[in-house]
Amino acid sequence: MAVPQPLNIHAYMQDVGRRARAASWTMARAATALKNAALTGIAETIERNQQALLEANERDLAAGAGLDAALLDRLGLNPARVRAMADGLREIAALPDPAGEITGLHYRPSGIQVGRMRVPLGVIGIIYESRPNVTADVAGLTLKSGNAVILRGGSEALHSNQAIASCVHEGLAVTGLPRDAVQLVETTDRAAVGELLRMQDFVDMIVPRGGKGLVARISEEARVPVIKHLDGVCHVYIDDRADLDKAVAVAFNAKTQRYGTCNTMETLLVAEAVAPAALGRLGPMYREKGVELRGCRITCRLLPYAVPAAEDDWYAEYLAPILAVRVVRDLDQAIDHIRCYGSQHTDAIVTEDLTRARRFLTEVDSSSVMVNTSTRFADGCEYGLGAEVGISTDKLHARGPVGLEGLTSQKFVVIGDGHVRK
Amino acid sequence: MAVPQPLNIHAYMQDVGRRARAASWTMARAATALKNAALTGIAETIERNQQALLEANERDLAAGAGLDAALLDRLGLNPARVRAMADGLREIAALPDPAGEITGLHYRPSGIQVGRMRVPLGVIGIIYESRPNVTADVAGLTLKSGNAVILRGGSEALHSNQAIASCVHEGLAVTGLPRDAVQLVETTDRAAVGELLRMQDFVDMIVPRGGKGLVARISEEARVPVIKHLDGVCHVYIDDRADLDKAVAVAFNAKTQRYGTCNTMETLLVAEAVAPAALGRLGPMYREKGVELRGCRITCRLLPYAVPAAEDDWYAEYLAPILAVRVVRDLDQAIDHIRCYGSQHTDAIVTEDLTRARRFLTEVDSSSVMVNTSTRFADGCEYGLGAEVGISTDKLHARGPVGLEGLTSQKFVVIGDGHVRK
Repeated sequence: MAVPQPLNIHAYMQDVGRRARAASWTMARAATALKNAALTGIAETIERNQQALLEANERDLAAGAGLDAALLDRLGLNPARVRAMADGLREIAALPDPAGEITGLHYRPSGIQVGRMRVPLGVIGIIYESRPNVTADVAGLTLKSGNAVILRGGSEALHSNQAIASCVHEGLAVTGLPRDAVQLVETTDRAAVGELLRMQDFVDMIVPRGGKGLVARISEEARVPVIKHLDGVCHVYIDDRADLDKAVAVAFNAKTQRYGTCNTMETLLVAEAVAPAALGRLGPMYREKGVELRGCRITCRLLPYAVPAAEDDWYAEYLAPILAVRVVRDLDQAIDHIRCYGSQHTDAIVTEDLTRARRFLTEVDSSSVMVNTSTRFADGCEYGLGAEVGISTDKLHARGPVGLEGLTSQKFVVIGDGHVRK
Repeated sequence: MAVPQPLNIHAYMQDVGRRARAASWTMARAATALKNAALTGIAETIERNQQALLEANERDLAAGAGLDAALLDRLGLNPARVRAMADGLREIAALPDPAGEITGLHYRPSGIQVGRMRVPLGVIGIIYESRPNVTADVAGLTLKSGNAVILRGGSEALHSNQAIASCVHEGLAVTGLPRDAVQLVETTDRAAVGELLRMQDFVDMIVPRGGKGLVARISEEARVPVIKHLDGVCHVYIDDRADLDKAVAVAFNAKTQRYGTCNTMETLLVAEAVAPAALGRLGPMYREKGVELRGCRITCRLLPYAVPAAEDDWYAEYLAPILAVRVVRDLDQAIDHIRCYGSQHTDAIVTEDLTRARRFLTEVDSSSVMVNTSTRFADGCEYGLGAEVGISTDKLHARGPVGLEGLTSQKFVVIGDGHVRK
């Protein structure tokens, strides 16, 4: 498939933006049944076109032969992954429609009724890399929430993304919803990203997904509001009132279930009183798994194969089989550590003590706070959002995995009977 | 009262920010009863110190003798306005505490419980002009929601704001809550604003209140997220199925109850079929009230004293006794007009037709949409928010009047029993 390269990127992107805005008006008033029919239609089209999707993906993989193994792993499609895309769309179809929901409509002493209506944001821009399933997930979430979306995937996944976008367009066409509700930027020219970031008139929110450098650059340059996370320096704190079996299970899973994900634990904090017992069990498990341990002074004394951690290790998002380990006095010191070195992504406490659990949930200011649970659960699917557009560690608008609700806002609705203000 | 002018504004503001951040941690875990006791304590202190407040205000008014009348009106305090400040604080005390509220906690198929906890944003910065009651309103809302606040009022109101801030500090001191939870920037040096806008480490959200030029400049310069509105080009659309008595009452009130407020109607849209009847009644009323009418061709034919509107009039926020009037074919053309010229602030339809009311509420993308109600009701107090930190026409985070909820965000809480991800 030849990739058309428009000569004038500015004009091309303005046209994409203008069409997205127009489509967003139609999507905002589209009936729930119609949107659900499109979602299940797209799911069927994806399954029916599995072979074509895998062939397009083959082309991307062949062209990307020189890329690193982790990236190729994210880029690759197989029958199971194609099925997962289709299932994800059906799951989104089954969720309640957020658009138009009116809450809290109540009478004020003046006699007016005041409530809030949840409404689509309008046009969402997504800038992402490698994983083609993001194309289907994000198209599904934006469609369901009544938005239009402009997708800018990585050039390494262009053929896969185009094949998925064709399925999306087929599903939209059958229901009569506008094709422009889901547009894939078809140029690999990087100038297109710069254009997207500055189209305030046509784009309401940008979600960048990718490495920290990319995301930082995008949010620096953008004039459109950006929802993002930069780092995932996630902690597990093992309290001295922890059930040690749970502590070992959670701390091992949080580090080793997958190394390259943003919700993987990067620093383990252990209360002094249980450090010998907890690290005595966990240390050998990590060692056997090939996880390098970088510890504080006490950790290194307890585990002779741990190497001393430097100050930088407490800030590090390794995304690799490396773990920083620190023994702390108590919950207070654990909270202080997380406040100082954390990235407000996901942090967990393991404890049987109710008051300490409540304190941790309240005082740790992260987008997900957990009790007796592996940080690896911080994920739109696991939370029941159907999928996620991204994960936010920003405080405004949306925090944590961003699903349908994060693609909407609430406006006030006021109903009166000729009421005037005195 | 001598105003101390720090030599090094950067160092001064960094210190203010650092102390606000530290206070925000204490505020985030302050008990509801303690916060409410502080609010009622501040209300009492304000009432007890009415004389001192009025004297401080006299000093500002005397110094501002050369300022324009509208500004002096906003600046002035009197016993009724002092009482209103105290009552507002008691009303905020009576509202439910938003901080810590957990919603939607439900079991997922994996066995974990997932819900969301409402939490304070942290440190709020407010930049405002003239009206001293903002100092009390904003201190009250930020305190109740568990935030710390940095207040940067106008230099013309400095003595009044200092006197109110003293009352706030007295109320905080009695309850043992940190004084730094509410800090007034004590320098009139404009460099302090520039510093505030760039203190990402210490400030989580900025709300600028003031003229469009000021707000535009602040949001251009800020590195901290800004919640704002620039224009209030509010519309009332009189549908051909309107009850004309209600239409006349709403359209007259929306324009004439106050001219200088952002929720005042600036353009009146009237359906063709009822234009002669509606304008035949409203025209003389506006004329008698001294409201200049700038109309479309049909309006000028119906009302000989109307002057022809130019294209710019449809974009204008007059904040004055001037009204743009346009006769439109129907609801569709009214929605198109609002979409094209509106500022997404507050727009109202007058109709008895349910389907048209529903369409207007859904399709007009403004922070407040109203049926049979004067746009002048778009206000935190009228909506039951206690007061407002400002009004937002942004789409992300908060729309419309911003009260306690807009000063918080929601994080995910996850509770398990040693759950690990498969």
